[in-house]
Amino acid sequence: MDAVTDLKRPREEDDNAAAAKPACFSSVIPGWFSEMSPMWPGEAHSLKVEKVLFQGKSDYQDVIVFQSATYGKVLVLDGVIQLTERDECAYQEMITHLPLCSIPNPKKVLVIGGGDGGVLREVARHASVEHIDMCEIDKMVVDVSKQFFPNVAIGFEDPRVNLVIGDGVAFLNNAAVGSYDAVIVDSSDPIGPAKELFEKPFFQSVARALRPGGVVCTQAESLWLHMDIIEDIASNCRDIFKGSVNYAWTSVPTYPRHVYGVIGFMLCSTEGPHVDFKVPVNPLDDSSSKSNGPLKFYNAEIHSAAFCLPSFAKKVIESKAT
Amino acid sequence: MDAVTDLKRPREEDDNAAAAKPACFSSVIPGWFSEMSPMWPGEAHSLKVEKVLFQGKSDYQDVIVFQSATYGKVLVLDGVIQLTERDECAYQEMITHLPLCSIPNPKKVLVIGGGDGGVLREVARHASVEHIDMCEIDKMVVDVSKQFFPNVAIGFEDPRVNLVIGDGVAFLNNAAVGSYDAVIVDSSDPIGPAKELFEKPFFQSVARALRPGGVVCTQAESLWLHMDIIEDIASNCRDIFKGSVNYAWTSVPTYPRHVYGVIGFMLCSTEGPHVDFKVPVNPLDDSSSKSNGPLKFYNAEIHSAAFCLPSFAKKVIESKAT
Repeated sequence: MDAVTDLKRPREEDDNAAAAKPACFSSVIPGWFSEMSPMWPGEAHSLKVEKVLFQGKSDYQDVIVFQSATYGKVLVLDGVIQLTERDECAYQEMITHLPLCSIPNPKKVLVIGGGDGGVLREVARHASVEHIDMCEIDKMVVDVSKQFFPNVAIGFEDPRVNLVIGDGVAFLNNAAVGSYDAVIVDSSDPIGPAKELFEKPFFQSVARALRPGGVVCTQAESLWLHMDIIEDIASNCRDIFKGSVNYAWTSVPTYPRHVYGVIGFMLCSTEGPHVDFKVPVNPLDDSSSKSNGPLKFYNAEIHSAAFCLPSFAKKVIESKAT
Repeated sequence: MDAVTDLKRPREEDDNAAAAKPACFSSVIPGWFSEMSPMWPGEAHSLKVEKVLFQGKSDYQDVIVFQSATYGKVLVLDGVIQLTERDECAYQEMITHLPLCSIPNPKKVLVIGGGDGGVLREVARHASVEHIDMCEIDKMVVDVSKQFFPNVAIGFEDPRVNLVIGDGVAFLNNAAVGSYDAVIVDSSDPIGPAKELFEKPFFQSVARALRPGGVVCTQAESLWLHMDIIEDIASNCRDIFKGSVNYAWTSVPTYPRHVYGVIGFMLCSTEGPHVDFKVPVNPLDDSSSKSNGPLKFYNAEIHSAAFCLPSFAKKVIESKAT
């Protein structure tokens, strides 16, 4: 944990940036925010900071919002960039439409995490959806998003949304069996409060809450960095989801929630009507989403392309499937 | 150019890294190398340095090789990371096999740049190839690669390779008309010695040197960052290449030669037998490449997927095509 400790050490005397900036900002580049983590040792990404807009400590994590020089406003949780105004579209659109465009007429959707509201914004594009439950553990993330990221938090305004502040694992355990068409798990990395969301009991609860042939999409790390984690997730999923289990990936700029410019998703379906995730059956037409702006990233070709894996990853992920 | 100037300022007194490290190493994170450029203002990527292995100044650029903590050995030209042992496979395989797998039986290939030898290693996998010319401007890059990156420079050992140290533009101008099946332009970014390689006269020379229905693949920047550059390149290419003109992209970890974790390629063909780059007609079978190790990244699905663009890029690139 040395890197993280370093990140949070007090700023140096000769630092010429405003003294008002919080201590958890990097001391390594004065006036810059540097992101380091035991999840990606030996490297750091830094963004130039124009102004710190918010700094707080919730019951679960450190929350920071700053205005960056070239990425718009940036949300940081526990030292890790969660979204930037410049690139959030790719992640939010893909984690949402990969599952929802893979089944006909999704009606009831559960989002675990995703407290910034971006996934809700995307789910709301689907006219067939009648009800959206969201369970986010940290109210501060919701409040901060509403204050600083109105184009992301716009998702909360949809009348179909039922927001619950609480623990996603407990929420799922109390959910009615077979009640959801789709569950989207928009979590942070498996080293903090989200750790449980990568473990077998959680996937069992998800499977229980899904209808037969229902689908789940969960943030599943970058194949450039975390093939070991991905192997574990895939193996857990194969034990539990008796429909299909697939890994997809897509490009999201630099930041380590999306480590190495790419982020992966595990897409699984329960036993029941077969789901072929590689072939979207529920196209999104742009007119269905007037209020939330046009899609910036997702389209049907990008959907199918996301399942084409590089040889090194294919060998590991697909060999385990047989 | 402030960022670059900063990058090269002398290291600070309190820097606890070995004094033996060269001045162009970042002073901003002691013991780390930080990459900044006017090509990506407001952000920096940093790698932890174990040991500096080489530092030189050629007639064209600063050349550095260091052992990183987590990426193996790293080659840096003018402050920009060109390759790391950990991720070089993706770039080298894609820039080579996207063009060469799109035409049947490529026989004569020209590589402009690519002085590390990685593209040669990949071209050599194609049994149909009889002759490979390479024109690299900077001999120091070749020498350094041979010394420090034997698994990359292995490409120079192929008996079909004819290495010319010189200016790629001049080389092309002297090439026989219609003499190549494929030209691969493995250049750095369009702000240094490689500037000309992104301009119209250069593309004219390439088109002239290609046979009818011959193909070119050129490094064409990241669509997350440089849509303006890509639009210019695409527009220049459409004026000059009368066959097909396509943009492809792929994931390559963090580094700004591959800015934002992705790098793009412009693939064009001259008038003649039609080339549909999206459908590889010349599959590479692994047995054809025993000496150079198995393919790590490229496969036929990744080939086709590389042409699926996100909506924001599709709108810009494909609308200009009509």
